[in-house]
Amino acid sequence: MRPFIHDNFLLESKVAEELYHQYAVHPAIIDYHSHLSPQIVCENKNFDNICHIWLHGDHYKWRAMRAFGLDEHFITGKATDKEKFLKWSEVVPYTLRNPLFHWTQMELKNPFDIHELLNPVTAESIFHRTNECLATEDFKPRALLKHFKVEVLGTTDDPIDTLEYHLELQKSEAYTKVLPSFRPDKVFKIHAGQAFRHYIQALEAVSNTEIRSLRSLIAALQNRVDFFDQAGCVTADHGLNFLPLQGKFSEEKIDQVFREVLAGKDENAVEITEAYTFFVLKELCGMYHDKNWVQQFHLGALRDANAYRSAVLGADTGFDTIGDYSHAERIGPFLSCLEQEGKLAKTILYNLNPADNHVFAAMAGNFQAEGVKGKIQFGSAWWFLDQLDGMTQQLNTLSNLGLISTFIGMLTDSRSFLSYSRHEYFRRLLCNLFAQDINKGYIPNDLKWIGGIIENICYQNAKNYFNL
Amino acid sequence: MRPFIHDNFLLESKVAEELYHQYAVHPAIIDYHSHLSPQIVCENKNFDNICHIWLHGDHYKWRAMRAFGLDEHFITGKATDKEKFLKWSEVVPYTLRNPLFHWTQMELKNPFDIHELLNPVTAESIFHRTNECLATEDFKPRALLKHFKVEVLGTTDDPIDTLEYHLELQKSEAYTKVLPSFRPDKVFKIHAGQAFRHYIQALEAVSNTEIRSLRSLIAALQNRVDFFDQAGCVTADHGLNFLPLQGKFSEEKIDQVFREVLAGKDENAVEITEAYTFFVLKELCGMYHDKNWVQQFHLGALRDANAYRSAVLGADTGFDTIGDYSHAERIGPFLSCLEQEGKLAKTILYNLNPADNHVFAAMAGNFQAEGVKGKIQFGSAWWFLDQLDGMTQQLNTLSNLGLISTFIGMLTDSRSFLSYSRHEYFRRLLCNLFAQDINKGYIPNDLKWIGGIIENICYQNAKNYFNL
Amino acid sequence: MRPFIHDNFLLESKVAEELYHQYAVHPAIIDYHSHLSPQIVCENKNFDNICHIWLHGDHYKWRAMRAFGLDEHFITGKATDKEKFLKWSEVVPYTLRNPLFHWTQMELKNPFDIHELLNPVTAESIFHRTNECLATEDFKPRALLKHFKVEVLGTTDDPIDTLEYHLELQKSEAYTKVLPSFRPDKVFKIHAGQAFRHYIQALEAVSNTEIRSLRSLIAALQNRVDFFDQAGCVTADHGLNFLPLQGKFSEEKIDQVFREVLAGKDENAVEITEAYTFFVLKELCGMYHDKNWVQQFHLGALRDANAYRSAVLGADTGFDTIGDYSHAERIGPFLSCLEQEGKLAKTILYNLNPADNHVFAAMAGNFQAEGVKGKIQFGSAWWFLDQLDGMTQQLNTLSNLGLISTFIGMLTDSRSFLSYSRHEYFRRLLCNLFAQDINKGYIPNDLKWIGGIIENICYQNAKNYFNL
Repeated sequence: MRPFIHDNFLLESKVAEELYHQYAVHPAIIDYHSHLSPQIVCENKNFDNICHIWLHGDHYKWRAMRAFGLDEHFITGKATDKEKFLKWSEVVPYTLRNPLFHWTQMELKNPFDIHELLNPVTAESIFHRTNECLATEDFKPRALLKHFKVEVLGTTDDPIDTLEYHLELQKSEAYTKVLPSFRPDKVFKIHAGQAFRHYIQALEAVSNTEIRSLRSLIAALQNRVDFFDQAGCVTADHGLNFLPLQGKFSEEKIDQVFREVLAGKDENAVEITEAYTFFVLKELCGMYHDKNWVQQFHLGALRDANAYRSAVLGADTGFDTIGDYSHAERIGPFLSCLEQEGKLAKTILYNLNPADNHVFAAMAGNFQAEGVKGKIQFGSAWWFLDQLDGMTQQLNTLSNLGLISTFIGMLTDSRSFLSYSRHEYFRRLLCNLFAQDINKGYIPNDLKWIGGIIENICYQNAKNYFNL
Repeated sequence: MRPFIHDNFLLESKVAEELYHQYAVHPAIIDYHSHLSPQIVCENKNFDNICHIWLHGDHYKWRAMRAFGLDEHFITGKATDKEKFLKWSEVVPYTLRNPLFHWTQMELKNPFDIHELLNPVTAESIFHRTNECLATEDFKPRALLKHFKVEVLGTTDDPIDTLEYHLELQKSEAYTKVLPSFRPDKVFKIHAGQAFRHYIQALEAVSNTEIRSLRSLIAALQNRVDFFDQAGCVTADHGLNFLPLQGKFSEEKIDQVFREVLAGKDENAVEITEAYTFFVLKELCGMYHDKNWVQQFHLGALRDANAYRSAVLGADTGFDTIGDYSHAERIGPFLSCLEQEGKLAKTILYNLNPADNHVFAAMAGNFQAEGVKGKIQFGSAWWFLDQLDGMTQQLNTLSNLGLISTFIGMLTDSRSFLSYSRHEYFRRLLCNLFAQDINKGYIPNDLKWIGGIIENICYQNAKNYFNL
Repeated sequence: MRPFIHDNFLLESKVAEELYHQYAVHPAIIDYHSHLSPQIVCENKNFDNICHIWLHGDHYKWRAMRAFGLDEHFITGKATDKEKFLKWSEVVPYTLRNPLFHWTQMELKNPFDIHELLNPVTAESIFHRTNECLATEDFKPRALLKHFKVEVLGTTDDPIDTLEYHLELQKSEAYTKVLPSFRPDKVFKIHAGQAFRHYIQALEAVSNTEIRSLRSLIAALQNRVDFFDQAGCVTADHGLNFLPLQGKFSEEKIDQVFREVLAGKDENAVEITEAYTFFVLKELCGMYHDKNWVQQFHLGALRDANAYRSAVLGADTGFDTIGDYSHAERIGPFLSCLEQEGKLAKTILYNLNPADNHVFAAMAGNFQAEGVKGKIQFGSAWWFLDQLDGMTQQLNTLSNLGLISTFIGMLTDSRSFLSYSRHEYFRRLLCNLFAQDINKGYIPNDLKWIGGIIENICYQNAKNYFNL
């Protein structure tokens, strides 16, 4: 019997099969945005068991387990790894139509070569077989990256990070080039009181720059941008509900409140937050432009929507959600401001609410400019949208409002070394979509031409865009 | 010739046919939210004619008739029932692609066994044949409910309702269990002046509780919740534009304005409305939690959008519409507040604007908890969305962001005893959707497993969820 | 080999072919909203070359060229027409899946009878062949309109326009009736300072009415409405981000600020803009009603989103975008206000953000009224949405929430004499959509009935709606 994940999974026509097997299987992966740990890559130790690479830290699975009514004990609690795995196996058959079902089976197939469906009957056996694999050389982190042909891996790093693992990795001759990405989200949390002051102190220390004013903060950040740039960084990333408005506060006023906050006086911090964010972000964007980096903006998430449970379990434990903000009159002015000053870097706009897809895709088109194909990218379907419908909608909206041929394609945005299945998932979908259009006569039946565009979306466009 | 509504209507593959006829036809109906009149069920009289069960009160049809340019005389005016029916028959052929076309033909087929299309040629005959049926025992309200296998029927009842018909019905041995649902919308209309004061007086009387303060209002409502609970109520429902924000008013201030309003002084009522609603609703939600009820929130409608015509014709006459509100930063804090206090009951979030589907489905996932499968439900496509595209989108969004396997399925939300066609419509669509996935290889071709999930969505999940 | 654009392009079934070739090919075109120049129609000169009819002024193509990274020199700059055409030919193969790809090939086929795909290999030849055609009598503006069977053409005209070309054209016996449309957008720009004052002066001159107050402005506008009406105008159009709210300013206050602005004092203009717009627009809508005109509202665009580049290159150069505004609580009150006063004209609501489709389609349904089929229209997919997905979504939403059978169908909204391909594109899609429904058994397989509805949508409904 044909296994559930077979060679032509998701490929619904001969044309789709041909496009995929000829043009989309072979290109290496440029995973330009992920949350993989450079320390784990650097140390390159075997994973203890399947839970360490698959369940721990995976809030997608945690949400499904909670929706199934499981006790938190088996999710983030004190149950043993095996107990957690067995509980997860009870949920899997009920994840039908959710991407977790496909991801689960794809990740068991590759790299574990396991073809059965995970469920309570098969769980015990799968637990042991995956763990046997994970104990071997072939399943160490770097071997896995090579196995998945990850040519470039972009991590996510705080400005105060010393990048020690990246620097160490650069001395090795690994298949995968691991590059840091500058993610200064904590710099914007001026309303976070003591936590913000501690962060600024750490930034002072690592940048060897006394921070007493807004301008000295910018100087410290410039120091870190320079350092990241020397360490091979080619991109900055930002997680923001929405891009900030400039508002009516003067630089002097923002500087004054910033100094107050440093001195422990927080009462004006909330009022100034958006203007402060605008000011600092704009300065940072100027630096990115000058380094020829790509700036990424992940917009539209509402963090910690279940305030109580995220306070108990901490950030990134499955209580973030999709926000419904107005973006057009925020993104437009922000990018216009950079454009006006000649400081608009290559930019990727990611959107978490599919109702905003058209706003984002059309907005990208307003800032395209000479010399770069697709200078402003409408980013790949992300997080909650990283599934067949979400990817299809992103691809279709981009196609209708822009040039899909210049798209830089997929990324994992993941914390797991197994999630390279998502690139395969994306590529199969992409080929199937173009094949549908060929079969309907919407685009010419010229597989070499179409195949070339697919290869570009899978690999070459990203390589060019990031100057790799 | 095959009739238009045939055995395999909407079932586009052999797999769909098998799923539907094996797993979806047989389960009874748990119609956990409707607007059917308990008085009509209780009195169980024959309907005078087809208009009384089909056109009177059906603002879906009225909107179509107005869009067709008909005179209001034939819609809500003084035309005879037969004239109205004949006018409706002129519109039907022009409702193609609107759910009214399918509903019309499905409802003629079942229960009337009429297979022709309704149009001006067939209208006269259909008018007489349906009326002949309606004069028989088999077409009395309770017989119809039994015919459609409505095992449980949830009505919609005001806190001031005496539930006399429910109590009477509970003495009978009818096939259908008729349960009241607590719908306190009028309690929130503090800005409605004299109408609000009259309502509060009625509440005082029925609860035998003097209402002089916010706290005594809560006491009166607790009395009604207790009474409804004793009468078999398992759920409360709310029609709100959006969930309220707490705002900055203190309980003292809200109490003060409430007292002012009771004393006939309305000028601060509008300003306090949202905070008042938050306060009262939160108290009510705590009561629902303590009774282990399910709380339903129907959000996103904008009532009386044509202010002039709804003032002339009254509420629920076809001038309500789809609103475009921001929900994420309202639902999150409201449910968080209940979660924090350990008072979050099982909750169904219904959404009227499909652009918000992802916000609602993701939000539900933030509040799932142990012990209940799908504790927070993203409710079935509702009102304007109760059609093939709307239901498909709701099912797909829920699938992508949550666990469709735990979904409690369809409800009618209807004022008509014929609208059980909507359960059939939903079940056919559901089977076809799963069958498409099987045929595409998206889910395993294991009809017993998939069929079991479908049975659960059609019946068992709701039964468990409402503790029936 | 079958050409890319063949007889059955987009028609995916025999039923679709039959519907299209029997019912949709033959009806003439009523292009009730376009931006074609009446001067060009009137003067009826040959176009210099393909760029003059195809690339100049076409910001759709300009955006694609920018997204492809081309130098502005080849877009709106000083490159020769031939250079620009050759550059465009480089982009075309990379516009796959964008409507530009289809439009390009459809417009080469009809009227130029060119069947090759445009690309750098074919560009030189196509440049010469199209230019040869354009030099002939058959390719003059009026001949092209006749070729495309454009029976009625609605242009877009400012109230201060003298309509000299329209009046001249009315003396001729051209196949195409060219009607002016009243588009008073500049009247609302009270915050535009000197430009506004100049505009008001021009309005004074052309209306021979001294404008010193709000009331005299209304009088001047009434003069222009009368003049347009005499010149055959049947419709007014408005490009607004959103419909205005009445707000709390009195007529006296608005009048006072209007007088201040006329006197060169601008500081209160921004604050009053929305209330002023409400006041003036409401007065205008009353005039439209009294003339039995159709009022069109194009809502949801955000103009000049790239503030810097649109300042450099001017309006309508490709820097407008899709806005994300809330519309329901603006459209409802505005139309209610007109309804209340018995002044609600036939109305078309166009929406630029597909996330708002359901809000618009449901809103239209609230204001339908006797005597007109589809009095309030949910307008055709527009601008960024004028593509297969966008049109499909508009048609489906309208079908689900209203009566597609009463829809007045497509318009070009274009600046190009070649863009009548869009009517063909729409009609093919429309037939294919109905055919899909027939093939699925969603609607009866009665081609005469369905074909009649299609003919109405393509031609007859618009003819009736505009009293042509």
